[in-house]
Amino acid sequence: MQSSKQLFTLITSAGQLEMSLRDIDLPAPKAHEVIVRIEAAPINPSDMWPMFGPADLEKASYDKDKKQLIAPLHQGMLSRVKSRIDQTLPIGNEGAGTVVAAGEHPAAQAMLGKTVAVLSGATYAQYCCVPMQACIVHHEGITAKQAASSFVNPLTALGMVETMHMEGHTALVHTAAASALGQMLNKICVAQGVHVVNIVRNQQQADILKNIGAKYVCDSSDPEFKKHLLQAIDETGATLAFDAIGGGDLISDILTAMEKVGSKDAKGFNTYGSAANKQVYIYGGLDFSPTILNRAYGMTWGIGGWLLMRFLGKLQPERVVELHKLVANEILTTFATTFTDELNFEQAMTPTVVAQYNAKKTGEKYYINPSKN
Amino acid sequence: MQSSKQLFTLITSAGQLEMSLRDIDLPAPKAHEVIVRIEAAPINPSDMWPMFGPADLEKASYDKDKKQLIAPLHQGMLSRVKSRIDQTLPIGNEGAGTVVAAGEHPAAQAMLGKTVAVLSGATYAQYCCVPMQACIVHHEGITAKQAASSFVNPLTALGMVETMHMEGHTALVHTAAASALGQMLNKICVAQGVHVVNIVRNQQQADILKNIGAKYVCDSSDPEFKKHLLQAIDETGATLAFDAIGGGDLISDILTAMEKVGSKDAKGFNTYGSAANKQVYIYGGLDFSPTILNRAYGMTWGIGGWLLMRFLGKLQPERVVELHKLVANEILTTFATTFTDELNFEQAMTPTVVAQYNAKKTGEKYYINPSKN
Repeated sequence: MQSSKQLFTLITSAGQLEMSLRDIDLPAPKAHEVIVRIEAAPINPSDMWPMFGPADLEKASYDKDKKQLIAPLHQGMLSRVKSRIDQTLPIGNEGAGTVVAAGEHPAAQAMLGKTVAVLSGATYAQYCCVPMQACIVHHEGITAKQAASSFVNPLTALGMVETMHMEGHTALVHTAAASALGQMLNKICVAQGVHVVNIVRNQQQADILKNIGAKYVCDSSDPEFKKHLLQAIDETGATLAFDAIGGGDLISDILTAMEKVGSKDAKGFNTYGSAANKQVYIYGGLDFSPTILNRAYGMTWGIGGWLLMRFLGKLQPERVVELHKLVANEILTTFATTFTDELNFEQAMTPTVVAQYNAKKTGEKYYINPSKN
Repeated sequence: MQSSKQLFTLITSAGQLEMSLRDIDLPAPKAHEVIVRIEAAPINPSDMWPMFGPADLEKASYDKDKKQLIAPLHQGMLSRVKSRIDQTLPIGNEGAGTVVAAGEHPAAQAMLGKTVAVLSGATYAQYCCVPMQACIVHHEGITAKQAASSFVNPLTALGMVETMHMEGHTALVHTAAASALGQMLNKICVAQGVHVVNIVRNQQQADILKNIGAKYVCDSSDPEFKKHLLQAIDETGATLAFDAIGGGDLISDILTAMEKVGSKDAKGFNTYGSAANKQVYIYGGLDFSPTILNRAYGMTWGIGGWLLMRFLGKLQPERVVELHKLVANEILTTFATTFTDELNFEQAMTPTVVAQYNAKKTGEKYYINPSKN
């Protein structure tokens, strides 16, 4: 039995976070499973809450002998993580590497030696045992670093466009639109001839998007923002939005603009607003403050959470395979990801480094390479 | 050609509301149409906005010679009713009476002389010409007054239960639950063995519901309200709510309770909350203030508008016919409506009377009888 070093997180009932490197025994792969030697595992914004929960990371310290980062939780927050108390849990949503062992299924065997990306929830490890369906097999010559971000951002961007088609919309609005994800979304939509109304927070972000061919970019710091938004929604006919922010009144502003466009030619009472289905999905929470809805958009609107894994679960398995292939084919173009720095396990637990990657700055991205010295 | 007296509403570009009684020529019914002599047309909360828009009714006056009520709009509100400016529009969503003429279609002919309820948008009239499909044919012996409220409340209550079944929920929450509609909903659900969590605002309303057999009634004025709500949602497993209020944080409180119940046995991270679909539909707006969402309920939730007419449009026509029959069969029990007073056209335009029915007090309901002296 082979051994694997792996990062784990634990929040104790005493209110302490403990992140640590441990040795585990690697199981033999079952028929449909493969063992992947992880060579690059991104640290995504969606990894932060599992990794650290509500820990006060300014008080974090690293114990080199124990290979353990500890930090107290913020006051009164233990109840927010009730379900995980005193459980040692794996971390790392995605990553990529080489298939070094495979179960007896021919399709699993065929993956031996290949570079694959995996979605597993336990990728901050030397090795990762996953069902072969949880892999994207990459083309020859693609490195693990190039393949590392094959799932979270690419499938979210594809999933948004997929949702748009499935729910009968023809264009979409995206907030925090200059993110790596937002750029992928624009590239996908430019290729498909679908219009995206991009909402950004400053001119620099607007420029990033314009440089990759985005036609509609609205800067919310511009005093004329609402006018520009209305105009862009009018020209594109967007009735669907994906929002990464959550808090404040931006969602309400988007729905208000959609309603104005939908009702611009209305005659008579129009008591209940336009009949077009106006929908906003919240997929992130950059702003934790409450969402404020003024409800000035008639009766045909919806707001809700959107979660990649639950969305993929609704698709036909064949469609998921098609999307995986799309990602593999365009991993150096549409879905290319740029990394700021490579970290080893110990660096990932060093408080000054944690402060860097936990800042979630647009354009900064780190990954763990378990074999880095 | 026969003539019919009918109430109309007009908002002028000068910012004045004019409600008036006019004579119109009645068309001959087409093959699939019937002409109904209206004998009772309820004044529902949903009739108020079409009738009066944002008029300042404290400044209303009635001109007996012109048979016209006039009132200025509230300052700055003209843009809110842009789509209807300078158009003379009919009013009255529903009503009941006798079929006095019918098109040549045998099914239309068969309705001659019967008491029917209609949904038309022009029921504040002596006569109303409607497609036969827009009628509920009532049993012999049922009066127009008894049949007057066959659509808005009964079909909304039935539509809520229908939505619950269609979207895979097994119990539901209802706010402003002691209303006539809320009482119908409880009667339907008691009969079907479906649990309703009723949210009311005082003990008197709670008593009304308990008297008709409601098991779960939560009084939001009780300091223990949130605890009671959580308990009721836990016992019933409700994951769907219909809200008549709109503003404030009640919707968020309902979703928070649903999430607590859904995640009570969760182990591990539970980063995205329970996988159960938690949905709130807003069908009314008793509180115009903004809806405040704290989003402390994971990622699998939705909020949206719910509109009877658009919901019915999604049903199979056969199902709509079944629901109509249900209303006819139970119009004296489940769907019985009590009226406070009967008004003629002129009374309905008298400012002191308008003030009474526009107060929308729970338990007070008026109807127009065009032939009343």
